[in-house]
Amino acid sequence: MAELSKNYDVFFFLILLLLSLTSQLSLARPSKEPKPCKHIVLHMHDVIFNGNDSANATGAAVTGPVGLGPFGFGQVFIFDNPMTKDQNLLSPPAARAQGFYFYQMKTAPSTWMAFTLVFNSTEYKGTLNVMGSNFIPAKTRYLSVVGGTGDFFMARGILELETDDFVLSVYFRVKMDVKLYECY
Amino acid sequence: MAELSKNYDVFFFLILLLLSLTSQLSLARPSKEPKPCKHIVLHMHDVIFNGNDSANATGAAVTGPVGLGPFGFGQVFIFDNPMTKDQNLLSPPAARAQGFYFYQMKTAPSTWMAFTLVFNSTEYKGTLNVMGSNFIPAKTRYLSVVGGTGDFFMARGILELETDDFVLSVYFRVKMDVKLYECY
Amino acid sequence: MAELSKNYDVFFFLILLLLSLTSQLSLARPSKEPKPCKHIVLHMHDVIFNGNDSANATGAAVTGPVGLGPFGFGQVFIFDNPMTKDQNLLSPPAARAQGFYFYQMKTAPSTWMAFTLVFNSTEYKGTLNVMGSNFIPAKTRYLSVVGGTGDFFMARGILELETDDFVLSVYFRVKMDVKLYECY
Repeated sequence: MAELSKNYDVFFFLILLLLSLTSQLSLARPSKEPKPCKHIVLHMHDVIFNGNDSANATGAAVTGPVGLGPFGFGQVFIFDNPMTKDQNLLSPPAARAQGFYFYQMKTAPSTWMAFTLVFNSTEYKGTLNVMGSNFIPAKTRYLSVVGGTGDFFMARGILELETDDFVLSVYFRVKMDVKLYECY
Repeated sequence: MAELSKNYDVFFFLILLLLSLTSQLSLARPSKEPKPCKHIVLHMHDVIFNGNDSANATGAAVTGPVGLGPFGFGQVFIFDNPMTKDQNLLSPPAARAQGFYFYQMKTAPSTWMAFTLVFNSTEYKGTLNVMGSNFIPAKTRYLSVVGGTGDFFMARGILELETDDFVLSVYFRVKMDVKLYECY
Repeated sequence: MAELSKNYDVFFFLILLLLSLTSQLSLARPSKEPKPCKHIVLHMHDVIFNGNDSANATGAAVTGPVGLGPFGFGQVFIFDNPMTKDQNLLSPPAARAQGFYFYQMKTAPSTWMAFTLVFNSTEYKGTLNVMGSNFIPAKTRYLSVVGGTGDFFMARGILELETDDFVLSVYFRVKMDVKLYECY
């Protein structure tokens, strides 16, 4: 009986060990919508080049729309946009977003985007690479963070996008909620 | 001797535990070409804009070819293509593929592609982000599924591409065999 | 007391087991800058099309710069570049890099790139998909390897980029140090 009880003790310990390891495994490969291992919120500002304001512009069209529907289908924009912690364009940038987007729907304003978030501050040094479809009428859009370098070595996650402000062909500001679920 | 045998029992149990944990680890990091955790087959239809058929067109050229070889090198196309479960363009779309491709070889018809599969049905809500090189003469081409959102949260995998039908500058249909190997 | 000592033996064994499993876990999800599971060094050659040298050109501009600063902002290039083991353009290609880049800064020469490394040799058959920002003035730039196919099934890693040689609008050669940290 003492033997049995001792075996149960060992068994109980093994179960605890198993549970603890399983929870480690599930952190490595979390179930749906786990807690992010890193969470960064920034606002991206895009000041669209009108041919004159070189000093302020941060992005520009490189092709025209092709005439397929009224929502700019086919127009490609390239950008190097500042990202700030608050909504103020003039706040010190915490990062830059460098990449491109193009309008890709004939029935709604919607863009496809791919870009790199470039961090070069005392807080973070490194990059995050992002791509996805951005259906502007939706309150929140979800892009994929597909890789990272430096402080974000090999990171993956989701970038949640919400429009803060929008002035057609002049300026837009989007809130970017970066949630990393794989951190090294 | 009884002591020894008891120790062997514990040892045996530990070996079993170790094997069970190891197999869990190898599921998380499978060896070459494992079984997909999700498999979706769809057919993508691209109706190329000729300047007039706005109602039917789903994609359009946004730049011309640059004259480097006879295979359209440098021509960029943007698309928002329906994807159907069968090969019929008029079947109800199960998803849309939104993105771009461009011809990138001077010696053969070949495109480089990046796009998002957008699902918004009762079956799936979410996106998959895809990129890769598409050497059209090969029977099967392999692109990378580099991320996902919604029902495909953080997914990764391979997209196998086969040409179903092709009418130059008018229409093409490709079979897309989406095999996810990382599912949350 | 003998009982106690026996329990300590088991406890000690469990600690060893735990440590061994933990180290396996940390191989699967390594800490910062672990040893790559695969390391490939190649030199990429880009011979820029000037409108005449079709035979030698491997890349071409498909849009013009937009006039936002003196560093070609907005100009898009498409390429199908040979990659060699040494720095000699005429060495047998070990792979090709197919994709695009565009200048995206008004204050410095800097490109955003996305491309596929296509291997079709006796050594490797398969692809690696890469994207990221390439700030040319930095000695080393870091792009993300976001996926792979064939021999590089599901791979992820970092591509380190260094300029070997650069003749504006004519030719450039970059060293690409491909370090994979997730191999199947």
